[in-house]
Amino acid sequence: MPRGFFITFEGLDGSGKTTQLRLLHKWMAEQGHTVTTLRQPGGTKLGEGIRELIVSSKGEAAVGPIDSFTELALMFADRAQSIAEIIRPALDRGEIVLCDRYTDSSEAYQGGGRGLGSETILGLHRLLCGNLQPDLTVLLLPDFNASLARARRRDGDESRFEQEHNDFFQRVWDAYKVIAARESGRVVLIEGNASIDEVHATIVEEVSTRLFS
Amino acid sequence: MPRGFFITFEGLDGSGKTTQLRLLHKWMAEQGHTVTTLRQPGGTKLGEGIRELIVSSKGEAAVGPIDSFTELALMFADRAQSIAEIIRPALDRGEIVLCDRYTDSSEAYQGGGRGLGSETILGLHRLLCGNLQPDLTVLLLPDFNASLARARRRDGDESRFEQEHNDFFQRVWDAYKVIAARESGRVVLIEGNASIDEVHATIVEEVSTRLFS
Repeated sequence: MPRGFFITFEGLDGSGKTTQLRLLHKWMAEQGHTVTTLRQPGGTKLGEGIRELIVSSKGEAAVGPIDSFTELALMFADRAQSIAEIIRPALDRGEIVLCDRYTDSSEAYQGGGRGLGSETILGLHRLLCGNLQPDLTVLLLPDFNASLARARRRDGDESRFEQEHNDFFQRVWDAYKVIAARESGRVVLIEGNASIDEVHATIVEEVSTRLFS
Repeated sequence: MPRGFFITFEGLDGSGKTTQLRLLHKWMAEQGHTVTTLRQPGGTKLGEGIRELIVSSKGEAAVGPIDSFTELALMFADRAQSIAEIIRPALDRGEIVLCDRYTDSSEAYQGGGRGLGSETILGLHRLLCGNLQPDLTVLLLPDFNASLARARRRDGDESRFEQEHNDFFQRVWDAYKVIAARESGRVVLIEGNASIDEVHATIVEEVSTRLFS
């Protein structure tokens, strides 16, 4: 059986990536594919425990202010577990895996946003994740100011980065652009303010081209 | 104010390292030093949460079988947090820090015992811990068979590695010996079956020489 296909969705909170992941999942299921979806952090039972630890470290009843490197190590602990428990087994069964955030998020948010540097992230990815790369990454970067406004309106654990300032978002944004340029072979960058349906159509076209040709 | 002094205690469970840490703490306090002690994993509130996650992943009500790289990343998350929250601030205040297990444990247990390799551990230590090394490491390797028997009699979370086989212990033991040879400048290797008092006297002598001369 051929190895499956690994697709990740990236972008700032509020970019519409989770919506697009769901739409692609629906489309692929209709095409007869077996699809596994997950999010990072989280996705496994252990990963949800890790996610809770990270979130609680940011809350009012904080367990103690979390160090940037601690947070990064926890993100990679979650990632290693989801690779071992979900992603690799599904790919080995020839399935499609759709993942909401992956190592590009660490590189953009911790590497760029928090200033830990891309080399740190890429080094951890090699050491802890066997350097497993997606076959395709959908990176959604709609208009910056609109994204920021949308992200700020959210609350709860989905938006824990959103207490940060605009310049944090700017650094994340810039880091994503650097990744898109460096990894142009796997990253499909979708910019601007196209409608949900238009973006979905673009993604379906890219996936079809890469999967079926 | 001069930077403090960082001492780690290493060895297999049952080697007497925790006893020796307590005796040295008592002796140093009597000498008028301000001493901070901690254990790894654990030591910070966040670290205790991480420790619980690791322990629960081994128990009967496991959250899911933990991947070796996940466990390693969690160990380093704990370590990064204890460095940021406890170790560096104490050293900056000129205090003595005594730590029950540190990166040598990761290298011996995960690197050697689980076969993840020293390079992985040393790479993570550079990326996540700023390569912070102890000034002195007390490595206790009493008679192998006696240590193994003692370790096996224990239970609870202190002994979670002890369900493994003798050859796992042998690999850990061998890795510790390699570390002792490579890091002979900081590692004081205490072998054989000396009494608790004799070992304590040896440690006091080493510490006195290095701290006060």
